[in-house]
Amino acid sequence: MRYFAKIKYLGSNFHGFQVQPDKRTVQGVLCEALGLAFGVPTTVTGCSRTDAGVHANEFCLVLENHGGTIPADKLPVAVSRYLPPDLSLYYAEECTEDFHPRYDVKSKEYLYRIINDKIFDPFDYERAWFVPRNIDDAAIERMRAAARHLLGAHDFTAFTSSECDVLEKVRNVYYITVDKVGKEITIRICADGFLYNMVRIIVGTLIEVANGRFSPDYVLKTLESKNRNLAGMTAPAYGLYLNKVTY
Amino acid sequence: MRYFAKIKYLGSNFHGFQVQPDKRTVQGVLCEALGLAFGVPTTVTGCSRTDAGVHANEFCLVLENHGGTIPADKLPVAVSRYLPPDLSLYYAEECTEDFHPRYDVKSKEYLYRIINDKIFDPFDYERAWFVPRNIDDAAIERMRAAARHLLGAHDFTAFTSSECDVLEKVRNVYYITVDKVGKEITIRICADGFLYNMVRIIVGTLIEVANGRFSPDYVLKTLESKNRNLAGMTAPAYGLYLNKVTY
Repeated sequence: MRYFAKIKYLGSNFHGFQVQPDKRTVQGVLCEALGLAFGVPTTVTGCSRTDAGVHANEFCLVLENHGGTIPADKLPVAVSRYLPPDLSLYYAEECTEDFHPRYDVKSKEYLYRIINDKIFDPFDYERAWFVPRNIDDAAIERMRAAARHLLGAHDFTAFTSSECDVLEKVRNVYYITVDKVGKEITIRICADGFLYNMVRIIVGTLIEVANGRFSPDYVLKTLESKNRNLAGMTAPAYGLYLNKVTY
Repeated sequence: MRYFAKIKYLGSNFHGFQVQPDKRTVQGVLCEALGLAFGVPTTVTGCSRTDAGVHANEFCLVLENHGGTIPADKLPVAVSRYLPPDLSLYYAEECTEDFHPRYDVKSKEYLYRIINDKIFDPFDYERAWFVPRNIDDAAIERMRAAARHLLGAHDFTAFTSSECDVLEKVRNVYYITVDKVGKEITIRICADGFLYNMVRIIVGTLIEVANGRFSPDYVLKTLESKNRNLAGMTAPAYGLYLNKVTY
C-alpha cells in the first residue's frame, strides 16, 4: 500500500523531522506508530526536513508498506492511538508510485510568529519569538520594502547557513507578507524551495530592518553579496511553522 | 511597599500556585524573581490556589516588602528579566493595607477548554481536554440544561473531592456557559468561590450528560444527594484556566 498523508506537530520536543540515532524525531516516532497500526514495517518519506524545535501545521509525506490493509480514510484514527499528543496524522489518501512527496513539491509556505510586546505571554512559550522593542507601522513598512528585494529567483547564499551543502542555491520566492495584528507579527514566505535556515535568516534580517540597523536597500546589497556575514541573525527555531505544501 | 498585581501562567510545569518544599510552584518562582528585582525579600499572597497543571489567564495577588523602590508601572518589565517564560507579571498598581487578594474576591471565572474531534491537535497539547466522541448541538443543549440546575447558592459537596477539608460547602454560582465553535467547546463557570476540584468535577459531569450517560435531571439529583460518588469524573487539570477575578 502507498498513501499520501498530512501530519501536524509541535516541534518543541522533537529533534527535527529526519530520523537520527538515539534522538526523538518526527520520522522515527511516526514510523514506529505506523508499524504498530499496520502490523508491518512502514516507510515514511517527507516533503522536507525541519530543524529541531520547528513546528508544522501541514507537513506532507508518503507512507509505504507491504501488506498494510487499513483503508486511507480510516488511517488517521487508526494510527492516532499509537501517536504521542505532540504529533497527529490528520489526512490520508491512496497514491500512485509516480508521486514523490519532496521532488513533486511546487511550493512551500512557512509562517513565522513574533510577539512584539514589553511582556512575554506564557502561552506563546516555545511557539513564537519574543521581540520586546516596539515595531511600529513605519517599521512594518520598512520590513515589507526589504522583503520585496527578495522576491523572485535569486541566489540565496547570503541567507543560508555556512553548513548548507547544497550546490544549487537559487530559489524562487513567490511572496513574503509581513502583518501586525495587535501584538503579533506574522511573516509568511512562500518559495519553490528553501535553503538550510533560509527563512530564519530572512526573519532575523527583517527584524534588523525593523530596528533600523539595516535599511531595505542594505538587504538588496546583502542578497547580491552572497555573503552570509552581512545578513542578520538566525531567528529562533521555535517561531517557525511549515504551514502549507502545494503540489 | 504594597502592590496589587496580575500574573498569567502556563501551568504545565508548575506544581500549582502555592509554595511547597522542593517543588516548582508559581508562588515560589515569583517570590524568588521579586526578591532579585527588588533586592529585598518580598511576600506574595494569591487570590486562590490552583492545582498542578492548571493555567491562569488572570491571577491576582498582593506583593509586599520593606524598602522596595520600583514604581508600580515599571514593575512588570523590571521583574520580567527574572521570570521564566511560562510565567509573566503583566500589571501592577500600589494598594492599601486594607485590601486582601483572597478575602475581597467578589467572583472568579474559570474557563475549561475541550477539543471535540476524532484527531487531537498537537497545538492543544497540555492546553485542552481531548474528547473524541462527537458532541452535537442537542448534546450541547443537554449540557446547558444540566448546568442550569447548578446556578445559584447550593451545597456543592457532591462536586468536590473527598479531600476537600473546608467545612462550609455552599457556593453561589453566577453563571455557567457552554459554547461550541468549530471543534472547540468552552465552558465558563463564575461563582463567589469554588471548592477543591469543583470546576473539574462539574465539567466531567457535563461531559457524561453530553455522552447521554447522565440526564440533566440526574445532575440535579446528584447536587441534592451531596454524594461525590454520583457525579462524573474529575476532568483533567490541563484544560482548566483561571480566567477572571472580580473585586
